[in-house]
Amino acid sequence: MNVSLRIVSRQLGLLMGVLSGFVLAVSVFAAVSERNLSSPAFQSLALCTLVGAAMAVILYFAGRKSRGTLGQREALLLVAVSWLLGAGYGALPFRVWSGLRPDAGSVSHSFDRYINCYFEAMSGFTTTGATVVNSLATLPQSLLLWRALTHWLGGLGIVVLFVAVLPILGVGGRRVYRIEAPGPAPDGVNPRIKDTARILWLIYCGFTVAETIALRLCGMSWFDAFCHTLATLATGGFSTQDSSVAGYPSTAIHVVIIVFMVLAGVNFSLYYQLLQRKWRTVIRDPELRTYLGIIVVATVIVAVSLTRAPASGQASAMSWPTAVRDGMFQVVSVQTTTGFCSADFDAWGFVAKVTLVLLMFIGASAGSTGGGIKVVRIIMAVKILLAEIEHVYRPKVVRTIKLGRSSLDAGMKLNAVVYILGLFVLFGIGTIAIMIFEAGNDIDITTAATATVATLNNIGPGLARVGATQNYLWFSDASKVALSLLMLLGRLEVLTVLVVFSPRYWRGE
Amino acid sequence: MNVSLRIVSRQLGLLMGVLSGFVLAVSVFAAVSERNLSSPAFQSLALCTLVGAAMAVILYFAGRKSRGTLGQREALLLVAVSWLLGAGYGALPFRVWSGLRPDAGSVSHSFDRYINCYFEAMSGFTTTGATVVNSLATLPQSLLLWRALTHWLGGLGIVVLFVAVLPILGVGGRRVYRIEAPGPAPDGVNPRIKDTARILWLIYCGFTVAETIALRLCGMSWFDAFCHTLATLATGGFSTQDSSVAGYPSTAIHVVIIVFMVLAGVNFSLYYQLLQRKWRTVIRDPELRTYLGIIVVATVIVAVSLTRAPASGQASAMSWPTAVRDGMFQVVSVQTTTGFCSADFDAWGFVAKVTLVLLMFIGASAGSTGGGIKVVRIIMAVKILLAEIEHVYRPKVVRTIKLGRSSLDAGMKLNAVVYILGLFVLFGIGTIAIMIFEAGNDIDITTAATATVATLNNIGPGLARVGATQNYLWFSDASKVALSLLMLLGRLEVLTVLVVFSPRYWRGE
Repeated sequence: MNVSLRIVSRQLGLLMGVLSGFVLAVSVFAAVSERNLSSPAFQSLALCTLVGAAMAVILYFAGRKSRGTLGQREALLLVAVSWLLGAGYGALPFRVWSGLRPDAGSVSHSFDRYINCYFEAMSGFTTTGATVVNSLATLPQSLLLWRALTHWLGGLGIVVLFVAVLPILGVGGRRVYRIEAPGPAPDGVNPRIKDTARILWLIYCGFTVAETIALRLCGMSWFDAFCHTLATLATGGFSTQDSSVAGYPSTAIHVVIIVFMVLAGVNFSLYYQLLQRKWRTVIRDPELRTYLGIIVVATVIVAVSLTRAPASGQASAMSWPTAVRDGMFQVVSVQTTTGFCSADFDAWGFVAKVTLVLLMFIGASAGSTGGGIKVVRIIMAVKILLAEIEHVYRPKVVRTIKLGRSSLDAGMKLNAVVYILGLFVLFGIGTIAIMIFEAGNDIDITTAATATVATLNNIGPGLARVGATQNYLWFSDASKVALSLLMLLGRLEVLTVLVVFSPRYWRGE
Repeated sequence: MNVSLRIVSRQLGLLMGVLSGFVLAVSVFAAVSERNLSSPAFQSLALCTLVGAAMAVILYFAGRKSRGTLGQREALLLVAVSWLLGAGYGALPFRVWSGLRPDAGSVSHSFDRYINCYFEAMSGFTTTGATVVNSLATLPQSLLLWRALTHWLGGLGIVVLFVAVLPILGVGGRRVYRIEAPGPAPDGVNPRIKDTARILWLIYCGFTVAETIALRLCGMSWFDAFCHTLATLATGGFSTQDSSVAGYPSTAIHVVIIVFMVLAGVNFSLYYQLLQRKWRTVIRDPELRTYLGIIVVATVIVAVSLTRAPASGQASAMSWPTAVRDGMFQVVSVQTTTGFCSADFDAWGFVAKVTLVLLMFIGASAGSTGGGIKVVRIIMAVKILLAEIEHVYRPKVVRTIKLGRSSLDAGMKLNAVVYILGLFVLFGIGTIAIMIFEAGNDIDITTAATATVATLNNIGPGLARVGATQNYLWFSDASKVALSLLMLLGRLEVLTVLVVFSPRYWRGE
């Protein structure tokens, strides 16, 4: 084996340092807000800060003798292990708090079992937003904040954060970024990755400030506004209410969240180009146009279907204003893979539901915080398919396929199509696995299939028993492990994770 | 438009001539077996012979002034239209017979409506085997024979038949053959396509004689043996019994049909190479080995699952001999896309059913009479996926992917993956369309999905309401049209059909 584990260990130590720093910040929030240093939440967070710091020191010093820079292979291992370890650590504040509760012995809680806490943390860091908590009112504010922070940290990527905050990675950092940046970004952002990462980080923070203020102005409390902002920009979906955004009747709040979900689903390199005043590049971007076009078309389809037939359990169909508002919110929430709910879309008609499920596969733009196949790959696949059809009756003509100004080479074409196929295969395997694991639970195929797609594409809610008003608590442990793995596979774009399971990778061939 | 419709018309005239010749043969059978020239079956077949002959003459003479040879574009149009027209004509004997029945006014029949007859004929010519007839006992023997013959004619391909029987096509014939040959056959068979087609035709006839005699020796009547042989070798699936092969309790019959289904699912060019005594090429063929390997592994999985839990409605699980016999029969029947049933596999457990559904996607070998993705494309996709994984951590290494002795170029790789992806997309679109068309029919997703996969991959039976003991009669007209189109898309390997719907093709760009 010629993978340098020392260098990976050192980087993981830095990761743990950053994570425990954030847990420390949340524990300060707990102390200030609860004014009680013996509260279970504060004690849990304080303990976890110490544990995290200790892990950081151990991992860093275990790898301190490493030489050279982070190579391609180490970077891959680091990315996959970062999320596994991050979720493992991120779950601790939940679990410890649950054990310290005064009524821990008498009243059971979702967080009594570590697997549930791990699922929640993985769902957070992968910006999925699937939850095992059936009553958020049982959680102290500090844990709701930590939950939202896992989204935010995962959002632009802990590793991108690393690249910006800790430029110690040097040349290896670029490789990490290339892996981490969701989706193919042929135009790149800037070869000087450290500067770029810093700018992206500032843009992300700017959006955070803007949305928090906007939501506060619309009537949310500062706390709710901040938590929902963290979940929006990461396209995560954790809310502070069991009813999600449906708990806020103000249309202004819905509109603000729609706007920022749309912004979070855009390739962040376009914001970088906006800062450089390259207006034309942004306006002409084929992915941006298609992304916005899909939102508009899907909103029209869903809104029309909502005005034509009443949702199940409703006496009459929606009025046009409500249909457009709820339809657009859900379309944007699902396509950007955020997963907020402003209505119980599981009760909607078949056309509306199937449109949402299709959007779950499409996903947001490459280079955004969203998941799914990504719009740019959909564009590529459609162009490739049309070229293949033409190839049947004109075998001698070779057309180059262009994306914006750049043309796709054979490797890029194959990669895009294999990626989509791989997601479909994982979707099939995941659905079958859940059906088998839950055989004793009388599961239906709609639940198994949408739970798979909602985790694989980092959305959160699905249909039926994982619908808008449901949660993931009832799944067996085996399913929770499988669904956590699907979240990771989706977030890290499949191949990155599979590499680590490849014998050739470890044999160093 | 620079597609020569005249030359297509002339070829379609020849096709109609052949088809009406077969209908004539069946009408002779009706006359001899029924000894009554006023029987509805004979009169229907005789009338259809005349109609077919008239169509043949009209189409041939409409195109008699055509010059030059059949080009690539004309060949594609010819293939797609051949099946559409063939099914349209093949449906007539059913429809006319239904109208001539003495009790036509009082007792209704599936064949009272032309759309049902068209579905049945398309299912026959595409070797699917999905039926709308809920009681085969109502059909005269001659129509059962015509039904089986549509399979046999479709099996190796009407167009290949054309190339062998009517070498008038000249150089254009090769192009037709290339389109018609199911799946990629990189090694080819023989450049001199006319000779090859004749040899394939003889092999096909040889198998027909062998299986008919074998089934007769096992106790089937000559008629049943012949009809089941026609359906086996075409991997079609129409039986002469409502209970399909389950109606014959003899294990010997099951074994004979298993053997010939396996043979029909092999690339026919391998038989050609056997005749040339190229034993090594055949034994080393990667697709053949994988194809047989999948059958063995799937049989073990299904048989084990059948011995472990009773099928629904059964008191006890199967004994080992029955489990192996029924498991293997159903595995082979589904993977070769034949669709015969020797047991009600819809009542089997989840693991057995899901294995069968996966086999429905895999399908038989390229160059066989079977449908589905084809084993060779599965092999290619797996190799491409492994190469893509390696590419992630070793971006500079370029590995050539080999299939047997030949290496795949970029175009072949992309084509294989796009094909699989295209089938999945059609599967999704088909399922959604059936769900919408049958919304008033309270359809479940299992039925919609397996009806789609069973027609798209030319299998026949699916699960739930299109299960082994069910039929397709209850679908709405819209669904029957959609399912017929799926059969055609699957049989002609998707792109061939899509080309005809491509505006560029017609504009002649």
